[in-house]
Amino acid sequence: MTDNLSANRANFVTHLECAMTGERYEAGRLHGLSRVGRPLLVRYDLAALGASIDRDAIAARAPDLWRWRELLPVVNTANIVSLGEIETPLIAIPRSGGKGVLVKDEGRLPTGSFKARGLVMAVSMAKELGVTRIAMPTNGNAGAALAAYASRCGIETIVLCPEETPEINVREIAAQGARVWRVNGQIDECGAIVGKGAAEGRWFDFSTLKEPYRIEGKKTMGLELALQFGWDLPDAIFYPTGGGTGLIGMWKAFDELEKLGWIGSKRPRMYAVQAEGCAPMVRAFEQGLEHAERWENAATVAAGIRVPKAVGDFLILRAVRQSGGRALAVSDAEILRAVDDTARQDGLLMCPEGGATLAALRKARAEGLVAEGERVVLFNCATGLKYPMPMAGEPLDRTKEIDLSRL
Amino acid sequence: MTDNLSANRANFVTHLECAMTGERYEAGRLHGLSRVGRPLLVRYDLAALGASIDRDAIAARAPDLWRWRELLPVVNTANIVSLGEIETPLIAIPRSGGKGVLVKDEGRLPTGSFKARGLVMAVSMAKELGVTRIAMPTNGNAGAALAAYASRCGIETIVLCPEETPEINVREIAAQGARVWRVNGQIDECGAIVGKGAAEGRWFDFSTLKEPYRIEGKKTMGLELALQFGWDLPDAIFYPTGGGTGLIGMWKAFDELEKLGWIGSKRPRMYAVQAEGCAPMVRAFEQGLEHAERWENAATVAAGIRVPKAVGDFLILRAVRQSGGRALAVSDAEILRAVDDTARQDGLLMCPEGGATLAALRKARAEGLVAEGERVVLFNCATGLKYPMPMAGEPLDRTKEIDLSRL
Repeated sequence: MTDNLSANRANFVTHLECAMTGERYEAGRLHGLSRVGRPLLVRYDLAALGASIDRDAIAARAPDLWRWRELLPVVNTANIVSLGEIETPLIAIPRSGGKGVLVKDEGRLPTGSFKARGLVMAVSMAKELGVTRIAMPTNGNAGAALAAYASRCGIETIVLCPEETPEINVREIAAQGARVWRVNGQIDECGAIVGKGAAEGRWFDFSTLKEPYRIEGKKTMGLELALQFGWDLPDAIFYPTGGGTGLIGMWKAFDELEKLGWIGSKRPRMYAVQAEGCAPMVRAFEQGLEHAERWENAATVAAGIRVPKAVGDFLILRAVRQSGGRALAVSDAEILRAVDDTARQDGLLMCPEGGATLAALRKARAEGLVAEGERVVLFNCATGLKYPMPMAGEPLDRTKEIDLSRL
Repeated sequence: MTDNLSANRANFVTHLECAMTGERYEAGRLHGLSRVGRPLLVRYDLAALGASIDRDAIAARAPDLWRWRELLPVVNTANIVSLGEIETPLIAIPRSGGKGVLVKDEGRLPTGSFKARGLVMAVSMAKELGVTRIAMPTNGNAGAALAAYASRCGIETIVLCPEETPEINVREIAAQGARVWRVNGQIDECGAIVGKGAAEGRWFDFSTLKEPYRIEGKKTMGLELALQFGWDLPDAIFYPTGGGTGLIGMWKAFDELEKLGWIGSKRPRMYAVQAEGCAPMVRAFEQGLEHAERWENAATVAAGIRVPKAVGDFLILRAVRQSGGRALAVSDAEILRAVDDTARQDGLLMCPEGGATLAALRKARAEGLVAEGERVVLFNCATGLKYPMPMAGEPLDRTKEIDLSRL
């Protein structure tokens, strides 16, 4: 099989454009947000791309993220900073989720979360564009992925976490060579500090969607699903939504694949899943708004979706509405029950954000939004091992007579 | 690509045999150790296998453990209990390990460790052979893999851990539906309790090498390496050695591949890596013994290789000697330094047992055992996320003026 990390491939990026105004920005230069403060999207010459390679050639390559190289922005192969971005498996959960439900287990990626997809791309592009110092606000997993990839290529990193960030994430970030700080605030408040330093030229700002390439990395979730489902997308996708990069990325991937003629016009219904304690997208969806107001006093066990304000709010809401999906909120109790059910009944330990997608599926079924027999994908965005589990393990004294019948 | 989880495949198992005496045992029946108390090895009709399929056909299948089905014991596809056993990636660590060194990152497997390979096979076979209740002694990761696969197919499990077992492992085992106990003793002392219950007919004994199929699962590490290296094996393999199932399994795999004509007679030098605080194989290797005496007062940060006595000792020593390798012991300080270096310099967070392999490589290089430019594989047997990391994250007060130059 072809080695995607050493093969040179053609690059089809034509330019970047503002997701709000369509204003055009030059490729091959460092960009943050657009002039109106909105995310930039990378555009490709899809006609030339389609003439150069077909979907079967992609499918015949080694099964990692870099098999999609022609649909990705990195120009020079030597700039790829890889830690083994495997294609993540789809795992049935028949007992806890029912028939037809597959979990895409993103916890298998480097640093144990789907953040690796976005960060491997953003860091590789930072390397390509000569960035030497990066700062980022994070609820944990994005910071861990940034630290790993940046350390690997000698880029210095400063990571700011809300003080509620799980202990293991903060330690992991530091272990992988970043400098990390705990801030008495939410992720957008950490982001304000990062933004201030970036404006002063101290570092490059790697906040969600504030640089254009994380979305290109996250896009590969949609590309992989298309291939894994034999170029016939599933009926519904449940996606834990904080900053929403993955949902936006998948929607962009489907659009590009259709333009290439590799899939048809059929789209999955996209369900943006949030926690009841931080559900700005759900509120905006239900009120018919294009933008979401900040959610005050955000609180949920699912730290990864504790994002009070998302800069890509309009892109999330647009994709959900176009797809015929919904934004759904679930309680922490429902999240924890879902995690527990899937671990005990199907042997798959999900993260709380992954549990939220199963909880939302259960709600969607109860409301008649998802029919029996539909092909459903839930995103488990990180390994469950990063999250607290209940105490266990009663002591057993081997020096005394043990009643084996009670074991 | 072919779906390895639904396709029916031919089975080539002829029988099992005692690894010590060669005595023959019937396939398709439940077996523990041989009559002389030693492991049983599964034997295949390799001539018929080779006539039925070639290595290119295997390579063209989806890249998971089940692509090797003809070389595995499960007869009925419906008995496969899968959680997505992907092919694990090989990751370069140029800064901490040097050129030509690749880490096989087994932390990407279900439940975050290479134990999944052995347990997916053993549990699938237990299902095939009608087992309903399993008990196991474990230092953590094997118990977690057993719990996950057994819960997934409704088999009841009892897991006994030494009281020093990392907290996260004990909790993970319970979260995945097993009943788990903490025993005031070492793993072989837990094993004695499991053995007693098995003798009384209370459960089936899943101790390392005491049932014949874990080794067949672990064998896939060797099969994968052969394929990933283009059927030309690396020069040296460093393997963290507790019970040694993986080392024995890889050696068996290489033998089977050569008999099939899929690889030549060249073998990697096998380095069995242990901790200075528990190094029975190193002592036996250096003393030229065929069996290893129990290591008293075993103690090391690398819990997975804290195995004072291994039932497969003679198979480990035989493979290491035949390969021209060595058994090497490293200190806990060397282990922790290796973990830290690889995380900080190459962005890869290994487990202590994985760190031990890098520490041993450094020692082997210093002793002239490994030359510059040789192709070396280190086994990182589990995700580093399961292990304690140093405290990190200095507080930052966003309500006050922040001196950004100090970040």
